[in-house]
Amino acid sequence: MKHRGILVVVSGFSGAGKGTLMERLVKSYENYALSVSMTTRPPRPGEQDGREYFFVSKETFERRIAEEAFVEYAQYCGNYYGTPKEYVERQLACGKDVILEIEIQGALRIKEKFPDALLLFVTPPSIRELQRRLTGRGTDSQAVIHDRLLRAGEEAEGIENYDYLVINDDLDECAAKMHRLIQDAHSAPCRNEEFIEEIRAQLDELKKGEE
Amino acid sequence: MKHRGILVVVSGFSGAGKGTLMERLVKSYENYALSVSMTTRPPRPGEQDGREYFFVSKETFERRIAEEAFVEYAQYCGNYYGTPKEYVERQLACGKDVILEIEIQGALRIKEKFPDALLLFVTPPSIRELQRRLTGRGTDSQAVIHDRLLRAGEEAEGIENYDYLVINDDLDECAAKMHRLIQDAHSAPCRNEEFIEEIRAQLDELKKGEE
Repeated sequence: MKHRGILVVVSGFSGAGKGTLMERLVKSYENYALSVSMTTRPPRPGEQDGREYFFVSKETFERRIAEEAFVEYAQYCGNYYGTPKEYVERQLACGKDVILEIEIQGALRIKEKFPDALLLFVTPPSIRELQRRLTGRGTDSQAVIHDRLLRAGEEAEGIENYDYLVINDDLDECAAKMHRLIQDAHSAPCRNEEFIEEIRAQLDELKKGEE
Repeated sequence: MKHRGILVVVSGFSGAGKGTLMERLVKSYENYALSVSMTTRPPRPGEQDGREYFFVSKETFERRIAEEAFVEYAQYCGNYYGTPKEYVERQLACGKDVILEIEIQGALRIKEKFPDALLLFVTPPSIRELQRRLTGRGTDSQAVIHDRLLRAGEEAEGIENYDYLVINDDLDECAAKMHRLIQDAHSAPCRNEEFIEEIRAQLDELKKGEE
């Protein structure tokens, strides 16, 4: 039975290690595709079109919005950032599980559009560690710490909307756990509609045959 | 962090191998407790009080109903069958995952009372195998087959209410998968309220300290 892929949304506190975790997941296991976002912000030195981002003009981005070409998009500091729908859809149709790193507001918009999306929330292993990462090591400015605390507060308010809490203690163990959670999600009834319909049709036929 | 156990409800088609699967699960892995039902039906030869069932009188059972001592109960063919609440609660409090085998109506009543219960639906590996098990091998009466088809039809209607579909192909593999699904369920936010509250309190404190 060929399964459609799962759209996996990864959110979590600043410093929880989401990026490293996702890289490890894609390297260690087959069947994953990392979604690359589209942006109107200019590339920084070393960034490559199609790797960090797809870099496009404001005109192109706004045309794409009008064409409903994004799974979700947002504007920060005068630049657009969005998740291209076509790539995501193509990978899902191929049976790949597609991973998006996205903050909580975007995650909730995705859950509305794709009720079958799997939402994972990554946290550091302990409160003490969370505190260390949020308040820095004496090198971060008050403004940076303030911003991190505000965002962490917002993210923490929404944890109940996520399917699983993933505690990032050991990187390899955590990647393995994430892999297991995603693979197990394939066993949910909402991701096996075809199999269930087949069973029901077969049961109807047996009942008819019996009458 | 000490977790409360999970109440696991196992349902599925006749012949899906639920009983064998649950026995294997309890034998192969620690941390499980099988719930023993209470009934007013008399013990059959070989049955032992506290192993197959707790055998009680109708008076005792009805007093227990009045005392709200059951997680759920039902009446079949003039006999009561019920899941004693005290045993379930005690095991959950100890951190044991408690497994109940129960048909779909009971499963839905449990989900209402215990929204955090994990509902697993066991099916044979293929439609052909399902058909073979439901229509028997030429040795079963029409009435028995009819009853099985009716019940299977009812069960199939409710699959979407379950958290996971567990396909029972190889017994050991299936038990391992069930174990994984149950253990993963411990990572859901609804089963980590304490940890989440701690994080939120800590974030509030950090914000206050910063002001």
